[in-house]
Amino acid sequence: MLRPGAGIMLGMPDIIEPRVLKGFRDYLPEAEIERRGLVEKLELAFRSFGFVPIDTPCLEYAEILLGKGGGETDKQVYRFPDKGGRDVALRFDLTVPFARFMAEHVDELYLPFRRYHMAKVWRGENTQRGRYREFMQCDFDIVGADSAAADADIVLCIAEAMRALEVGEVRIRINHRGLFNRFLASIGAAEKSTAVLRAVDKLDKIGAEAVREQLAADLGGEAAGKVLDFIRQEEGFEATLAKLESLAGGPGPDTARLRAIWAQAREAGAADGLVLDPSITRGLDYYTGVVFETSLSALPEIGSVCSGGRYDELASLYTTRRLPGVGASVGLDRLLAALEALGRSRPRPGYAQVLVLDVEEELEPRYQGIARALRAAGIACEVYPEKRKLGAQFAYAEKKGMAFALVVGGEEAAAGRIQVKDLKTRESVEAASLEAALELLRGRLA
Amino acid sequence: MLRPGAGIMLGMPDIIEPRVLKGFRDYLPEAEIERRGLVEKLELAFRSFGFVPIDTPCLEYAEILLGKGGGETDKQVYRFPDKGGRDVALRFDLTVPFARFMAEHVDELYLPFRRYHMAKVWRGENTQRGRYREFMQCDFDIVGADSAAADADIVLCIAEAMRALEVGEVRIRINHRGLFNRFLASIGAAEKSTAVLRAVDKLDKIGAEAVREQLAADLGGEAAGKVLDFIRQEEGFEATLAKLESLAGGPGPDTARLRAIWAQAREAGAADGLVLDPSITRGLDYYTGVVFETSLSALPEIGSVCSGGRYDELASLYTTRRLPGVGASVGLDRLLAALEALGRSRPRPGYAQVLVLDVEEELEPRYQGIARALRAAGIACEVYPEKRKLGAQFAYAEKKGMAFALVVGGEEAAAGRIQVKDLKTRESVEAASLEAALELLRGRLA
Repeated sequence: MLRPGAGIMLGMPDIIEPRVLKGFRDYLPEAEIERRGLVEKLELAFRSFGFVPIDTPCLEYAEILLGKGGGETDKQVYRFPDKGGRDVALRFDLTVPFARFMAEHVDELYLPFRRYHMAKVWRGENTQRGRYREFMQCDFDIVGADSAAADADIVLCIAEAMRALEVGEVRIRINHRGLFNRFLASIGAAEKSTAVLRAVDKLDKIGAEAVREQLAADLGGEAAGKVLDFIRQEEGFEATLAKLESLAGGPGPDTARLRAIWAQAREAGAADGLVLDPSITRGLDYYTGVVFETSLSALPEIGSVCSGGRYDELASLYTTRRLPGVGASVGLDRLLAALEALGRSRPRPGYAQVLVLDVEEELEPRYQGIARALRAAGIACEVYPEKRKLGAQFAYAEKKGMAFALVVGGEEAAAGRIQVKDLKTRESVEAASLEAALELLRGRLA
Repeated sequence: MLRPGAGIMLGMPDIIEPRVLKGFRDYLPEAEIERRGLVEKLELAFRSFGFVPIDTPCLEYAEILLGKGGGETDKQVYRFPDKGGRDVALRFDLTVPFARFMAEHVDELYLPFRRYHMAKVWRGENTQRGRYREFMQCDFDIVGADSAAADADIVLCIAEAMRALEVGEVRIRINHRGLFNRFLASIGAAEKSTAVLRAVDKLDKIGAEAVREQLAADLGGEAAGKVLDFIRQEEGFEATLAKLESLAGGPGPDTARLRAIWAQAREAGAADGLVLDPSITRGLDYYTGVVFETSLSALPEIGSVCSGGRYDELASLYTTRRLPGVGASVGLDRLLAALEALGRSRPRPGYAQVLVLDVEEELEPRYQGIARALRAAGIACEVYPEKRKLGAQFAYAEKKGMAFALVVGGEEAAAGRIQVKDLKTRESVEAASLEAALELLRGRLA
């Protein structure tokens, strides 16, 4: 490995191999434009539901970030002493910083508080499982209200976000942890709930029979059968809810909450994709009420693209103030992969629509004047920045996905004319003036 | 200091004090909305000039990031061994990662390549000087062309960015390092150029007489006088250029370049704010051609809000390929402070324009239906997520800067009516139907 600068001292240029760390990625323009496109659509969806953005530092005190962490998280965190000897770490999610943020700022804010936060997080994961060590999270939460309307808002916002991303039909699967717990108590398996939830969570992966075997080992065959009966969906939300209610021992706040969410989703036109799925459990510790997962109907095998749920205490590590909330997180990397698999991603190498060619160096002021007029008309464009063969300039325009090229040589300039070349059809039209060229472009680009 | 989790083990809740590291900042919604507003305007400006976005990892091999660094940079960098023993660091600017990026990907891209990159960087600076340890940089560059048109494009894009940010009149000050060097050679001070550039760079801060004294100590009184004469502007770009050309020994590629940039800026309507200022030097090592600084006419004392210049070699540490370029960087923190000082920031606590009040719990499905109709009409809105006193709900709407509240109680719901309350005038209008309410809101919000 070369030492940086060593070559300079020796008078010969050593080259440092340009590379990124394993699990980290560069985004080239096409990939970055697509990612930003999704982020912009998500932002509009969040904003249309009243969510506001916040930001927090990427680096925090390790004790803040790891207060909640179990052993698994700790091992993955990028943690180090800074120059002042402070024990610091890169955030590994957006939930812990949000909890710290709410505890610190709740008196400057207002409740209920609905925020979104889209930002990078870092985890030193095993990259062999196809995971990245730097990735983006897109979280949205409503904190300070424990209500069906808040739960429903998250469901509706998930539906709107997916619609905005144009990923096709989705299924938002919902369940309630309280209802599941009630049922487990009714079959005398309350103290085994962790094992049961863990087994049920594998249903999609290992299938019903394997889950039955695992459960039978823990609870005996009869109880295992009851659990499998419980986690099976009936025809439609209401029928499933009625069955669960009866198996869990009758109506309770959990079934009332699910019924209210269902009524709100129906009225807001989101009932079609909303499924009551009693096999959804979402991990073990954090969630206390409803839980959500979202799958793409055309690509269910990629797993959930937006998950979340309700929690009782967001920030109990940092404040005695009770902050219940509900929220979800969009899986951006998974969605990008899904869009590509579905052939729905539309690669776009650039934003500019028009290239003004550099035909003669002395005409460059004229080219800048033309570009200025185009921009004033709302048309993103660029002037090719040096005189080169026209073929090279056309090739450049095509690489950047531009639709038109404007050609002005000495003759055209003298006559005030502009050649407008359609880069798709290869057809050229001579516009008699700048105004005529603008008119033409406006019409074709509209 | 409390150990996280210790309290849980003892059965009593220890509280970890919620706080951020010194030099790091949370962005509450109002500040974040303003920052995002500027970023979005900058992006539109960059895109309208054909710049495309890229992204690179926040964490890189230390040898990549520090290959270029001198002692000062090294000391400020967050650098540590990762779990795999790799020597890694957080990026301290966007230029070094861009150089690595270009060296690594130039064959997948095309030249000239124009990119923008807006992202966080980290420096463990002395925070007592009012500096932050985490801040955003907004860079844009054209690489692979050494031409007046590329230089002019950066000038024009700076002008467009400042126009988009609505910071009022600006002065873009330009100079050419080659011209300065030619002049120094002509007075026999070539080998003292570092000291001269360093002294001249302080002109704005310490004044002409103090600069003269410093120069006189290095060069003698006569040469010092010549330098002061050289760095003084004349009336207008062309007169200043004529003087510099004569003092530097006649026409050269540097004066031809400046003249060409001037002609292009004039034709593109950016001549008013463009000033040839021979006292601008922009540091010492990196730049080899034109250099820029941008000041706000209403607030020159805050210094440059957008600086940059031309360089011969972007990526010589990582490739033998020659990559000349030109670019600039927008000082976002400084611009935010300037907008506030100028009274031009327009605080905006949220994006939603309408709150649907929660008057009766059983009407929540109806409220969600109303919100859905508003969103379909392009109106960002939210349903207050629980039944509370109307006063508290109105106060919430005002805190989030909403313009209207919709009130639907049992009577209104039965009759299909909606009360539309203007939160500024406090005036209420009763709409006979949802359609009528939509009509009213569309008119008022337009």
